[in-house]
Amino acid sequence: SNSFDLDSNPHRRLNILTGEWVLVSPHRTKRPWHGKVEDLAADNRPEYDPKCYLCPGNDRADGDVNPDYKESFVFKNDFSALLEDTPADSLNDDDLLVAKNERGICKVISFSPKHNLTLPELTVSEITAVVNLWQKEYNSLSENEWIKYIQIFENKGEIMGCSNPHPHGQIWSQSEVPMEIVKETERQKNYYAVHRASMLSAYLKLELKKNERVVFENEHFAVLVPFWAVWPYETMIISKRHVNSIKFFNMAEKQALAEAIKALTTKYDNLFETSFPYSAGMHQAPVNDGDHPEWHWHMHFYPPLLRSATVKKFMVGYEMLANPQRDITPEFAANRLKELATEHYKTTKP
Amino acid sequence: SNSFDLDSNPHRRLNILTGEWVLVSPHRTKRPWHGKVEDLAADNRPEYDPKCYLCPGNDRADGDVNPDYKESFVFKNDFSALLEDTPADSLNDDDLLVAKNERGICKVISFSPKHNLTLPELTVSEITAVVNLWQKEYNSLSENEWIKYIQIFENKGEIMGCSNPHPHGQIWSQSEVPMEIVKETERQKNYYAVHRASMLSAYLKLELKKNERVVFENEHFAVLVPFWAVWPYETMIISKRHVNSIKFFNMAEKQALAEAIKALTTKYDNLFETSFPYSAGMHQAPVNDGDHPEWHWHMHFYPPLLRSATVKKFMVGYEMLANPQRDITPEFAANRLKELATEHYKTTKP
Ligand SMILES: O=P(O)(O)O[C@H]1O[C@H](CO)[C@@H](O)[C@H](O)[C@H]1O
Ligand SMILES: O=P(O)(O)O[C@H]1O[C@H](CO)[C@@H](O)[C@H](O)[C@H]1O
Repeated sequence: SNSFDLDSNPHRRLNILTGEWVLVSPHRTKRPWHGKVEDLAADNRPEYDPKCYLCPGNDRADGDVNPDYKESFVFKNDFSALLEDTPADSLNDDDLLVAKNERGICKVISFSPKHNLTLPELTVSEITAVVNLWQKEYNSLSENEWIKYIQIFENKGEIMGCSNPHPHGQIWSQSEVPMEIVKETERQKNYYAVHRASMLSAYLKLELKKNERVVFENEHFAVLVPFWAVWPYETMIISKRHVNSIKFFNMAEKQALAEAIKALTTKYDNLFETSFPYSAGMHQAPVNDGDHPEWHWHMHFYPPLLRSATVKKFMVGYEMLANPQRDITPEFAANRLKELATEHYKTTKP
Repeated sequence: SNSFDLDSNPHRRLNILTGEWVLVSPHRTKRPWHGKVEDLAADNRPEYDPKCYLCPGNDRADGDVNPDYKESFVFKNDFSALLEDTPADSLNDDDLLVAKNERGICKVISFSPKHNLTLPELTVSEITAVVNLWQKEYNSLSENEWIKYIQIFENKGEIMGCSNPHPHGQIWSQSEVPMEIVKETERQKNYYAVHRASMLSAYLKLELKKNERVVFENEHFAVLVPFWAVWPYETMIISKRHVNSIKFFNMAEKQALAEAIKALTTKYDNLFETSFPYSAGMHQAPVNDGDHPEWHWHMHFYPPLLRSATVKKFMVGYEMLANPQRDITPEFAANRLKELATEHYKTTKP
């Protein structure tokens, strides 16, 4: 039905990947804001910081010394949330207290030797080196047969809990499939069972045809605001080819992914002329877990900002207790992101 | 099994209410923190603020004037996320773009005429007046047959998106059952189908017997850190009597609930000697939706602070993309809360 008014009526939208709904209140942007205003993080870092545990040549908490690396660099997290040698054990009291040990390997990956840069400020070839390292780590971690899932992600900005501004991401790999992946597996499996095709391929085709939420596109990837986005400027990168993990990307695809990441994160920075905070990460098939022909690689970006560089969306009472809720529509967000330049504001402003 | 070591091995625990898991990394508290430190909100408000839209006698955005109220006071939210007159309509494009209009009524409830107080600083009888008003609103909102769920909640503190420090909460009622309630209904229904008894009654009995996570108890309610708590100092109030909504609480229960809320929020304030931020709210059966004998009334408290008044837990990259994760154990949190006084630090310190 074309008469359905997504622009003005409060409504709910279905996240086809998780089966969960988001409440959309388009009229609510008129609400004035008298609440919390975030501090702007200082943006005058040196290229090298002698106290940073990610800069080349510096000491780390475990006593190691970083090599004098030139591109990206990976090492085991000195404060890993998961440990490799956790014994297999479990607890079940009447199905009321249920727990199970979990093993894992957590890594940190520095995106650049330069302390003062962020992803949008790297060249496409430097970002391609990061994508290469992600792929290499994914492949080698999955050689551990007990590892069932590998989460590659980045927390960017203080407001997203990032405690070191040196450009870096993390990889947590673990012996159990985490919740979000369980949900996305189930939905994609159901679709695949009926259609013998990827759900995200069908979705992407529809989005490219409608062209209402597409933000950026190149030969191998599309960036869009998903129809069911929860965060104000949430986006998703989807591969045009249906592959279930980063393992299958060829050189052209890795370069195209680097280009898409650069374009998207540059648009983000340009939106409020600030180093745009977000948490981002890839979703892909579980490993050492049989075939997953239903799985379609994609990458989510969850940025918290709503109105400006200092006013974020709060996912609090109603959202935590009842249902995710958003104010601006995904279509509004997509339009704003689409029209922004892919030249970084720092390079175009003196 | 008693040998399962919850105190030191990374493990996952099952939330029996939602069917979702939380990852617990007890050893991770040793991690140093160099990241974001929150501002302390000023705590020197006047008893009456002429610019506050919740103070007695003041103007509101819709042109109304607040009465000169003496206890608590409720009115329709001037910036409601849901509207009463939204037309019934829906959209479905190949099961890929799925949306549905949603109706609702959103209200604001002031807990006290005094601008400078918070729940723990009210008397038990003043909090009982709030509980009475919650019950009255719950009963009258459910008279609208199209309303299927009523979410009563409070966002406390700037860090929880609260834009006015005047003590207040909200009530969002709506034509669809929100996600968290769908999950909790399903799990409680499954348990009830097998046991013909309330899952939370069985859980509460086990917790009271073990006495490892109980924080406070009176004749009608228990406050505990749930076995599967996600937030560092998350708690839950459970009614000892199995009733499915606030509608069924008698006078003694309403007073006991007020006492439990006062005790818990006072302990929270005492923990870091700060006005402790949280989002809290009741979960109860859907309304105008047939019998729900499986449902057991409870109230969740989700506070963000982890280490101090200014360092919170960040639910970011891994948590958003993969799985909720916590550092300190629920048992550690329960012990700390249990040993704290139920006298407010402001009244005991000069
Ligand atoms: O309605 P308020 O208090 O202005 O807004 C606050 O609570 C709402 C319900 O949890 C959230 O949607 C908002 O993000 C938050 O700022
Ligand atoms: O590992 P880091 O960067 O110290 O920590 C950050 O990311 C983690 C993974 O999302 C979170 O659990 C932490 O709360 C956050 O501060």
